[in-house]
Amino acid sequence: MRVPYEVMRDTFKRIFMKYGMNEEKAGVCATIHAQSSRDGIYSHGANRVPRFIHYVQDGWVDVSAEPSLDKQFGSIAVYNGNMGPGVLNALFATDKAIELAGEHGIGMVGLHNTTHWMRGGSYGLYAARKGYVAISWTNTESCMPPWGAAECRLGNNPFVMACPGDDNEPVMIDMAMSQYAYGKLQVVRQAGKKLPFPGGFDKNGILTDDPGAIEESMRILPMGYWKGSSFAFMLDVLGAVLTDGICASEIDGVGKGSCGGASQVFIVIDPSRIAQDRRVKEIIAGAKAYIKSAKPDHEGGSIWYPGEDYVINKAENSEKGVFVDDGVWAEIQAL
Amino acid sequence: MRVPYEVMRDTFKRIFMKYGMNEEKAGVCATIHAQSSRDGIYSHGANRVPRFIHYVQDGWVDVSAEPSLDKQFGSIAVYNGNMGPGVLNALFATDKAIELAGEHGIGMVGLHNTTHWMRGGSYGLYAARKGYVAISWTNTESCMPPWGAAECRLGNNPFVMACPGDDNEPVMIDMAMSQYAYGKLQVVRQAGKKLPFPGGFDKNGILTDDPGAIEESMRILPMGYWKGSSFAFMLDVLGAVLTDGICASEIDGVGKGSCGGASQVFIVIDPSRIAQDRRVKEIIAGAKAYIKSAKPDHEGGSIWYPGEDYVINKAENSEKGVFVDDGVWAEIQAL
Repeated sequence: MRVPYEVMRDTFKRIFMKYGMNEEKAGVCATIHAQSSRDGIYSHGANRVPRFIHYVQDGWVDVSAEPSLDKQFGSIAVYNGNMGPGVLNALFATDKAIELAGEHGIGMVGLHNTTHWMRGGSYGLYAARKGYVAISWTNTESCMPPWGAAECRLGNNPFVMACPGDDNEPVMIDMAMSQYAYGKLQVVRQAGKKLPFPGGFDKNGILTDDPGAIEESMRILPMGYWKGSSFAFMLDVLGAVLTDGICASEIDGVGKGSCGGASQVFIVIDPSRIAQDRRVKEIIAGAKAYIKSAKPDHEGGSIWYPGEDYVINKAENSEKGVFVDDGVWAEIQAL
Repeated sequence: MRVPYEVMRDTFKRIFMKYGMNEEKAGVCATIHAQSSRDGIYSHGANRVPRFIHYVQDGWVDVSAEPSLDKQFGSIAVYNGNMGPGVLNALFATDKAIELAGEHGIGMVGLHNTTHWMRGGSYGLYAARKGYVAISWTNTESCMPPWGAAECRLGNNPFVMACPGDDNEPVMIDMAMSQYAYGKLQVVRQAGKKLPFPGGFDKNGILTDDPGAIEESMRILPMGYWKGSSFAFMLDVLGAVLTDGICASEIDGVGKGSCGGASQVFIVIDPSRIAQDRRVKEIIAGAKAYIKSAKPDHEGGSIWYPGEDYVINKAENSEKGVFVDDGVWAEIQAL
């Protein structure tokens, strides 16, 4: 079904308030979730609201916790998220990193002991819309086998890079280290389809495009095989090292849900200290035009720049109402 | 054949001096090339020496150029590489970024108008061996089609992340955005073999593991399909934005060889301002042990951490002499 953006946001806000969040914080969290759905990131927008509430009820997320400063030196700061709402902690950390970048050109905030940040791209877009470049990532509990292994020992550790665009909308990547999310496998399986490319190994170790076989084996494929596996390892350990936090081997022992106790890094850079705004816009416009000038790989095909899908989804969902799965919306109403 | 490390390094040094480099600079460049081969990165060690000399002869690399400061603000600095040797420029930029990180906790150097940095991992290892975390990348000329395109419009933009290890050797990724390098395709084709996984599309747009078919079409596959394509785009534009430099669309017009005029970003962080050295070592040791504790995907298989292959290659090449292709060594001797 489709729900007007404002209705969706206000519904989330009422729910978050009902479960103990103050009005201001509930409004911020509701906006992040509603915007994620509006941008087409349904998996981390409306769909995550019920699970978030379950985490609150289980005591895995403390809705009243505030981040506390552990350390500050020059252009870096380290905060303890105190298991507060991941969205609020991540926004707080992004704001602090923006402040540091404003003062020093580049700033970094390390955030440990936090909870699921939902859509990582939210913070990249937030910084880039204010004119900053952002590089962020989170580590997570294990959900992917390292290359050469049949058992999960690595998180899918979403990695974000965002840059102000040539117009109002930033260019951005927000990607997990697995080729497909488990959520995607579920959707494809329920539709009775196969993945467009192999997404993991079945229980016999055979590469397969059958989503159900991968869900069963939990042998989801790192993007680029050994490359995504190594990248995930580095994001995991740097997540812990740069925040004085913990990595997958330790998050697995926390037992407070997905990303409970995770470590997140927020690097923000002020491009206006480096290049003129006019030149930044020229670079982005030039690069977008350049990839679009290539011959498509099939008749009528199109080549997208990173972030273009959000712009398209946002326009459609703003006009027609934000798409939400009927079952998910019923679950949300029941909260 | 195998050549003792010192012989290889001294041979390179004599060649670099013969082609106009002063003794000190020649020694540094020779060491970087010889170490790359010793670590098993043959493609960017000995194998690149002849091409580097050709670039010098063509006037594409100015062996006597020095980087010059364009801008400095807080913990960022921007340098013009003045088309000097990429290895020397990148080491210079890494040193400056280390200096900034020492002062401010994090530092960034943007380097534009530079030339091929050879093995990007050299600078990650260099910083990590001094106790710093490094995140670096370079953009390049177009050599890979964006996702959905049949023509090259993106560079393979190597990306490096390095962190001090639990013992002397850092953990590190140094990865290009294509699933395989063109050099790898050539080696596999010459051996009459197929790639272990599809590496690109043939001229008819069919995904293939036949290296020759991909060399012909130039439709090399981004790692993780659309993910590597988007990542390459972001590294390209951020390369230009964070250095006041140029991106692939403009590098393609420079016409001074691979990476001639490229832009490179060096972000360095001092982890000692965040976590105790003992804790950093514990994180790395724990993460390495954790992935190795997984069941291998086949009997007798092993799971490697990022950077382990360099350690193994280094030990073997140090003991038996550094491997170098007979033809390449003959070509080097002829210089």
